[in-house]
Amino acid sequence: MGAFAFEVVARDRRARAGLLTTPHGTAATPAFMPVGTAGAVKAVTPEELVTCGAQIILSNTYHLYLRPGHALVRALGGLHSFMSWKGPILTDSGGFQVFSLQSLRRIDDEGVRFRSHLDGSEHLLTPEKSMEIQSWLGSDVVMALDECPALPASREAVAQAVERTTRWARRCVAAYAGPGVLFGIVQGGVDEDLREKSARELLELDLPGYAVGGVSVGEPGELVASIVRATAGMLPEDRPRYLMGVGKPEDLVDAVDAGIDLFDCVLPTRNARNGTLFTSRGKVNIKRAEFREDPRHLDDACGCATCRGYSRAYLRHLYLCGEILSSRLNTIHNLTYYLSLMAGMRDAIARGRFEEFRRAFHARLSVAEARE
Amino acid sequence: MGAFAFEVVARDRRARAGLLTTPHGTAATPAFMPVGTAGAVKAVTPEELVTCGAQIILSNTYHLYLRPGHALVRALGGLHSFMSWKGPILTDSGGFQVFSLQSLRRIDDEGVRFRSHLDGSEHLLTPEKSMEIQSWLGSDVVMALDECPALPASREAVAQAVERTTRWARRCVAAYAGPGVLFGIVQGGVDEDLREKSARELLELDLPGYAVGGVSVGEPGELVASIVRATAGMLPEDRPRYLMGVGKPEDLVDAVDAGIDLFDCVLPTRNARNGTLFTSRGKVNIKRAEFREDPRHLDDACGCATCRGYSRAYLRHLYLCGEILSSRLNTIHNLTYYLSLMAGMRDAIARGRFEEFRRAFHARLSVAEARE
Repeated sequence: MGAFAFEVVARDRRARAGLLTTPHGTAATPAFMPVGTAGAVKAVTPEELVTCGAQIILSNTYHLYLRPGHALVRALGGLHSFMSWKGPILTDSGGFQVFSLQSLRRIDDEGVRFRSHLDGSEHLLTPEKSMEIQSWLGSDVVMALDECPALPASREAVAQAVERTTRWARRCVAAYAGPGVLFGIVQGGVDEDLREKSARELLELDLPGYAVGGVSVGEPGELVASIVRATAGMLPEDRPRYLMGVGKPEDLVDAVDAGIDLFDCVLPTRNARNGTLFTSRGKVNIKRAEFREDPRHLDDACGCATCRGYSRAYLRHLYLCGEILSSRLNTIHNLTYYLSLMAGMRDAIARGRFEEFRRAFHARLSVAEARE
Repeated sequence: MGAFAFEVVARDRRARAGLLTTPHGTAATPAFMPVGTAGAVKAVTPEELVTCGAQIILSNTYHLYLRPGHALVRALGGLHSFMSWKGPILTDSGGFQVFSLQSLRRIDDEGVRFRSHLDGSEHLLTPEKSMEIQSWLGSDVVMALDECPALPASREAVAQAVERTTRWARRCVAAYAGPGVLFGIVQGGVDEDLREKSARELLELDLPGYAVGGVSVGEPGELVASIVRATAGMLPEDRPRYLMGVGKPEDLVDAVDAGIDLFDCVLPTRNARNGTLFTSRGKVNIKRAEFREDPRHLDDACGCATCRGYSRAYLRHLYLCGEILSSRLNTIHNLTYYLSLMAGMRDAIARGRFEEFRRAFHARLSVAEARE
């Protein structure tokens, strides 16, 4: 495990502020990881990521395995060197993307057989293969291959996925030899006892970190918060807890309240490219006619390059013209929004004021939604 | 005309180095103007343009007239403010784009009737309208509306275009009241006497600058250089000379040798998005298999952010994945190449070594082409 460490530096009820240390530096938690699908966070450079406040990023094993291939990335010195990102990198197992290739997959205990979305070639993703890929990429944190059933699913199916997830996690532990550390992923759908079972079995492996998986995969929205809260409570206090693929700003705030430390989601970057911007006044669609002649900056509460340099009218114009600069400026703003939100939460936790922060956040959100 | 001035600070045979001063600052000539079609140089920010070495940019009247509209740009403080570019801006007349809408136009002495490529709406572009649009945009240099016949064309058609270009230039002079200055455009196709006639008539208007138009519009390639050289020789020594829409690096070097001061072309930016990169070793297509595992920087002779930060293998990967970052990094490199070439020419002229520079440039190009 080498340079890996996690230290909780402040607690406020269940919320925690911490420091996640890796061979490529330290990230303050709660941390949001921008998603660099194919070895690039879409539309922005590593330098811009730093300016936006990113301290750790996520990249996708599935995509990098298919293109350019993990052998090539290894030959070029690993993913950090390949993409010129000097900070920590977490990679997923590749499983989630493969499972979403509905018609292209066949799962059995050995692994997942799938066809590439690029050229139709057939591949087998096993726990061992996922470990090999993530190891060759040189990730600081690698994720175990899990089975993540789409919901709604029968209790039977979810229970089987929990068992397979445990078996696969054991194989990942046996197969993975660094250079990073391996996190386990708790499955169990919306059944608290299945979540308990999954957590208990994975905790036996004494992994340096744990993720809450299988959330926001089709279950009723109102259940998400309670599953996250319950599952977070099953995980060790002294290990980082990572809520995978979530989510909206309000979800992040509530999950931090439940004791989550790490997040990733394509929402800020994907929404940016679709012209949807997160602001202190709520979500805004930049293409709206009301912004046609609006000379104001997007969000006066934001200090990002986009909000310092350009008018709403210009951002709208770029979006309507399909300019690449639109994706860039919007991405910089949305990432700054997310990463500033995380910094605000870390600060509130350190000051013992997180509940106040959370209430104020939701109050502003309600005002914004009422205005819409 | 206010703050407008042009000063030749060094001569080397016919080549000149100068300073073009506008209300928005001074550009050293020979200058290349990156093209900001719709109020944005595709894929890059104004700050990056400055870093690449841009001192003046071009924007397109046709595109801005249709979207977002010149009234809106005026309401937002003009194009400089709208797009956050603080330096000089030259706008074209809109004519060239309208003429290229083959099926959509009807030309008579009044102007050009055309249909928008965006929504099919009908518009009339007259000399007066072009002046109004460019005035409202707040350009530092505006171009007269000219008739630019596609070649090959009959001598009769070219002669008529020359006459109409003169009539329209007079109307532009009458209509334009700033805030920038108006340049005339010499037409005449490949006929030196028609070029003479066009130049003579336009010189009577005593304009602060002149352009060579109607080049690279279908004439045999080997004629371009001689037309440019002949026409440049017809233009006043003390006024800037602008070769419109040209071109390849070697064309720029030869045109500077003919006494040209200003250039614009979409080649560096468009080629960048298509993965074609200009380097000290000649043109390179980044998608080539030879770059698959190539860890080297694109061009060791280049100091741009792309060449300092990324490998050829990574640039190839980004291009194959269709990543926005590919367009960005490639554009930064190509613009840096073009703008460094201009800086190199200015320096060579100042040192009285331009012919040496030009020969060395062509020699390197031949080596590169032989290697291809």
